[in-house]
Amino acid sequence: MPNLDALFWPRSIALVGASPDKSGIRGRIVDAVRQHGFDGSLYPISRSHTIIDGLTAYPDVATLPEAVDLAIVTIPAAYVVAALEACGARGVRAAIIISSGFAEERGAQGIAREQAIRDIVARYDMAVLGPNGEGYMNAAIPLTATFSPTVFDLDNGLTPEHSAGGGVGVVSQSGGIGFSFFNRGRPKELRFSFVISMGNEAGLEGLDAIDYLLDDNNTDVVLGFVESFRTPAKFATVASRAAALRKPLVLAKVGASEAGAHAAASHTASLAGSQRAYEAMFKRHGVVFGHDVDEMLDIAAGFSFFRDRLPKGKRVAILTPSGGAGIWLADVCEAYGLQVPTLDDETRAAIDRLLPAYGTSRNPVDVTAQVIFHLGYAPVLELIAASPSIDAVLVAGSLGLLKYVKPQLGALTRLGKTIDMPVIFCAYTLAHPEAVALLARAGFPCLTSMPNAARALSAMADYDRFLERSARDDDGLVDALEIPAPVAADLARPGGIICEHEAKSLLAQLGITHRDALVTSEAQAVTAAAALAQPVVLKVQSPDISHRSRIGAVALDVQGDDAVRAAYRNILDNARHHHPDADIHGVSISPMSEGGVEIIIGINRDPDFGPIVVLGAGGTLVEVLDDVIVTPAPVSRLQLLDLLDDWKGKRLLDGSAGMPAADIDALLNLTVMVSRFAAAAGNISSLDLNPVIVHARGRGVSVVDALIITNDAERTGNQPLATD
Amino acid sequence: MPNLDALFWPRSIALVGASPDKSGIRGRIVDAVRQHGFDGSLYPISRSHTIIDGLTAYPDVATLPEAVDLAIVTIPAAYVVAALEACGARGVRAAIIISSGFAEERGAQGIAREQAIRDIVARYDMAVLGPNGEGYMNAAIPLTATFSPTVFDLDNGLTPEHSAGGGVGVVSQSGGIGFSFFNRGRPKELRFSFVISMGNEAGLEGLDAIDYLLDDNNTDVVLGFVESFRTPAKFATVASRAAALRKPLVLAKVGASEAGAHAAASHTASLAGSQRAYEAMFKRHGVVFGHDVDEMLDIAAGFSFFRDRLPKGKRVAILTPSGGAGIWLADVCEAYGLQVPTLDDETRAAIDRLLPAYGTSRNPVDVTAQVIFHLGYAPVLELIAASPSIDAVLVAGSLGLLKYVKPQLGALTRLGKTIDMPVIFCAYTLAHPEAVALLARAGFPCLTSMPNAARALSAMADYDRFLERSARDDDGLVDALEIPAPVAADLARPGGIICEHEAKSLLAQLGITHRDALVTSEAQAVTAAAALAQPVVLKVQSPDISHRSRIGAVALDVQGDDAVRAAYRNILDNARHHHPDADIHGVSISPMSEGGVEIIIGINRDPDFGPIVVLGAGGTLVEVLDDVIVTPAPVSRLQLLDLLDDWKGKRLLDGSAGMPAADIDALLNLTVMVSRFAAAAGNISSLDLNPVIVHARGRGVSVVDALIITNDAERTGNQPLATD
Repeated sequence: MPNLDALFWPRSIALVGASPDKSGIRGRIVDAVRQHGFDGSLYPISRSHTIIDGLTAYPDVATLPEAVDLAIVTIPAAYVVAALEACGARGVRAAIIISSGFAEERGAQGIAREQAIRDIVARYDMAVLGPNGEGYMNAAIPLTATFSPTVFDLDNGLTPEHSAGGGVGVVSQSGGIGFSFFNRGRPKELRFSFVISMGNEAGLEGLDAIDYLLDDNNTDVVLGFVESFRTPAKFATVASRAAALRKPLVLAKVGASEAGAHAAASHTASLAGSQRAYEAMFKRHGVVFGHDVDEMLDIAAGFSFFRDRLPKGKRVAILTPSGGAGIWLADVCEAYGLQVPTLDDETRAAIDRLLPAYGTSRNPVDVTAQVIFHLGYAPVLELIAASPSIDAVLVAGSLGLLKYVKPQLGALTRLGKTIDMPVIFCAYTLAHPEAVALLARAGFPCLTSMPNAARALSAMADYDRFLERSARDDDGLVDALEIPAPVAADLARPGGIICEHEAKSLLAQLGITHRDALVTSEAQAVTAAAALAQPVVLKVQSPDISHRSRIGAVALDVQGDDAVRAAYRNILDNARHHHPDADIHGVSISPMSEGGVEIIIGINRDPDFGPIVVLGAGGTLVEVLDDVIVTPAPVSRLQLLDLLDDWKGKRLLDGSAGMPAADIDALLNLTVMVSRFAAAAGNISSLDLNPVIVHARGRGVSVVDALIITNDAERTGNQPLATD
Repeated sequence: MPNLDALFWPRSIALVGASPDKSGIRGRIVDAVRQHGFDGSLYPISRSHTIIDGLTAYPDVATLPEAVDLAIVTIPAAYVVAALEACGARGVRAAIIISSGFAEERGAQGIAREQAIRDIVARYDMAVLGPNGEGYMNAAIPLTATFSPTVFDLDNGLTPEHSAGGGVGVVSQSGGIGFSFFNRGRPKELRFSFVISMGNEAGLEGLDAIDYLLDDNNTDVVLGFVESFRTPAKFATVASRAAALRKPLVLAKVGASEAGAHAAASHTASLAGSQRAYEAMFKRHGVVFGHDVDEMLDIAAGFSFFRDRLPKGKRVAILTPSGGAGIWLADVCEAYGLQVPTLDDETRAAIDRLLPAYGTSRNPVDVTAQVIFHLGYAPVLELIAASPSIDAVLVAGSLGLLKYVKPQLGALTRLGKTIDMPVIFCAYTLAHPEAVALLARAGFPCLTSMPNAARALSAMADYDRFLERSARDDDGLVDALEIPAPVAADLARPGGIICEHEAKSLLAQLGITHRDALVTSEAQAVTAAAALAQPVVLKVQSPDISHRSRIGAVALDVQGDDAVRAAYRNILDNARHHHPDADIHGVSISPMSEGGVEIIIGINRDPDFGPIVVLGAGGTLVEVLDDVIVTPAPVSRLQLLDLLDDWKGKRLLDGSAGMPAADIDALLNLTVMVSRFAAAAGNISSLDLNPVIVHARGRGVSVVDALIITNDAERTGNQPLATD
């Protein structure tokens, strides 16, 4: 990885393709770099001008008086490769390629150009942003190395003069979206450290930029817009560092829709990864999933003001002078998973002393407009924030008039320093810009969307819980299993389709499940059944036969020697009749399992993130519920428990829906073991335990059918089987 | 109902309690009324001043030189009743009571004052708004009869000078929220006709105000904020008129959360009705359910610009210069139930001729910033909007710079008049205020939230479908059943708990379901079972015994005379053993029904809206799915089919989840009949068919258990039974 300081903190810049014509990007970039006060060396490079904007211009990179830190390249695509090569030769350490016409373009030429850039990057170990990007902004230098219109003609400068909030860094594959975060977030008095537009990522990748911001002292929270990670393997490392540094990542991952996936491919020349795997990885690593620019900004606002005072739960107090706004916000809070509990009696009594007869201290605390006019927000806010009944406060005020906010600045500033929980203002009319600035100065973000304010608090509480969990020693994190040589050999056998009895026998060697008896004669069948001393199930075993029930190759609840013999014969007859060429290994004999809840446990190898565990309701219910747990392997018990809480199917198991409570413990144990196995067995393409019967609490689980497909099946083109 | 024109279009106004002190509401109301140019007669009424703001003041209402149209009352609550009485005596036809201190206050005094107002309203047939309200704004007069800060010091006046959009009326119980619609919607260039703050509704109710706006020529769409309807029975009439006039209602109904319900009670002194019943009524009547001020404004924007060109489906084209914005918006559209289909080849070919190699015509149509700079939006927009593949267009542009919008005004204005489908601009950076104004003038709303833009189009398409359905003759709307006298007599019998065999026999008389045989001896049991010539079910019948299976008072799948006899004896023994005092009617004999999907059909009488049909998955699944159909009775087949489409349980029935397709037809017929019965039987408090087995397609349904509770059960305090 090249040193990125030259790219992001340059002291000298060459503008390759600079022009005095301000109507185009090549002219605007000169203004862009100079306008906010960059005081390093600046060298325009132009074939047609000797002076540009009062600066001495140079005919090419080779003639530069120094090997600059950064070259900003705006010339047409056809000339970019040669210019970049010249930069490398001249010792330039970093470049931004603004120009389009690379892999995002239809046809082979653009792709070839992009490959040439990659080659130069590798050869010179150069830090390169783009091509087809909008550059970046580093507000601390300050430097706006971008043609984005959002950084020109700013009324209030790049950053708020006074704001108690922390720094927000933005990394976006799309420049338009990246700078829209800045454009829409600046009026919220957010303090942006960086906005980085990644473009095609021929050099630097989005995850590299995020990783760099984790070490930036001006950045406390990172917003990202992701079409796909170019090197997904970097994600876990970067996300783990972010968690260790307590810098939240709030990332939008787009391409979920069919249209979006196509557009992502045409936009930055990368195929969208599987959306569910991304979501699973984000959840595992405490990354907040973003859905909308404003929502993400509001989440960032919450984190940037309160990252050292995250809510310890989801109990919210609402303080408002408008009864209607309070009711509505309470509804919205509950819709977003927050609670709005009645305040404790002591707090209520203290508040009631300040309220007129038509106010209420219940929660929402309707203080009436009267009280806000005369006392302001601070006195009641202080009382509420001292309550043991809550974890955070939302203040739903009008905030349209400066005169009601200004006199409160002192009191609010004092509270901003002392209150030990998040307090977020949420304006129900448009907030006065100066009111927003005053509140930010006092230590409070002022949002304007009730749903986003609720979402922000919910995300903050979830993140705090995630950090707590990650920091604990007893969270039972699990490793990949060690795979003994015989199992590894089984997995490596040619063909790649490992049918039920083989799969179970393989899993049995790892202690994951039980092995069934495999018999090849009526006599063996009778003996095996007798040994179980209970009703049995007989099933044909063949890597070539799936949907065995349908062809009569399964017999359930068989009891007695004669019945076992008959079932054995019948199964083999049916199997041979329907699949005359099948390789039949024999017939399995297993105990008829008692009743319970049918569950599917599966593993799918995601091309980006490796083995992903899928757990869902079994049988037809999985489609009716339309909700499965998806999480990367290996997964721990505690991690699974968290996911179980958000899963619609939980009520099938926990006894709450009128069914007996099932053996969730045994189900978790099995899932953890399967996930550890999948994490170790690199050549498993998929694994299905389907169904698994979860019996009543204390009675364990039964794996009814199992199937493993290894990469060899893909290599040899073998058709995967289905479980029954 | 009093004539509301005097209230909402007054030519003369008395300001009861006017004051020269502008720091309080009583002074500000004088400014409020005068500031936007009201040119009728104005009479301050004051005990302490003879001139206020240059106007002659009068000591009381009695001395007024004319019986004014409207009195605006801002004096303390204690004096309001006397002042209102004086208004009535003087012939004043309407009043706004701004003052607080009525039913919203803790204690009896406020409630008594509010009752006194009601009495005066009734006595003088006066149109009264409030008390405890913020008044109203009528932009056409123009008159801002409110102290809301949102109508003071406006930069651009009450309404946009040029906007092709229609009028938006607002009716809100909360004044703060009501005027926040205006405050946040005005910068979107929405043309507000009225904002009406209802307050405690001692006179005029919210539904009266909405009804009034339906006849207002300046109002094309109505936004409402509802805590509860004071007279819910008015809703269906008002909503039906709105649909007939094609004026969409977009209503937020709050109080869903526990905290919200409490707050609603304390806020406007009205208990929140049952939220689900409200939702069901809204859905039935095509009312759009609002969740957030900005969302509702954006929906209103869509309707106000395109109510005569609603989308005929949910296929959306996205036009954008930013690939990233296009992908994101496509994802958001699909999340909101819209489709983003690939455009047809002909349209694509035409677009491709305008695009550079790195643009795409697929959809999202990424035209690149290049094309927008040089051609603007119009040429590609015109091509897209002519495509047969789509029903609406979203334009995701930056719109932050005026210079890219201004030159396009002519072309866009022409398109605004000719394009026959909704085209909504959605800015991904903050839109320039003048750009928003120019677009509005050309005929296009400019929104700034992708989710809201998608939600608006989705709501518009749903509303169009609703109107189409309502206008069709063959939509099979159903009436209440006629209840024959014997059935009515059965329902009126004392006790109020009508157990299975009685309920089925009652429903059988209406042709809704079959009656089971009721036997009182072993011999009768054998005869009845033999007559069915198939395995039977025996169940004890008693209004005093529920949970019959648990005590062994049900026998399933009984076959043969001896078995029937034994089952009969056994059931009666068990019933008498567990319930020695029960009034046992006998034992029912019914055919053992074949398999199928268990469904619950229920009726609950909502105190606000009468009988509500509930249809859900049977057994334990209802809690796992956590989704039931709720709709007012009676309900037609087509109405049910629509609701079925949005119901998670649909896959249990339609054959899509691997189960055989069930007899949905028979289920719908049964539900329709039950709903028609419930609509007719005014004294039914609840009805449960639980479970109903829906057999395979063509095989009908079986009502396994039935229970009816009438109002008499509530009167006599009888404990309702549960179905088994």
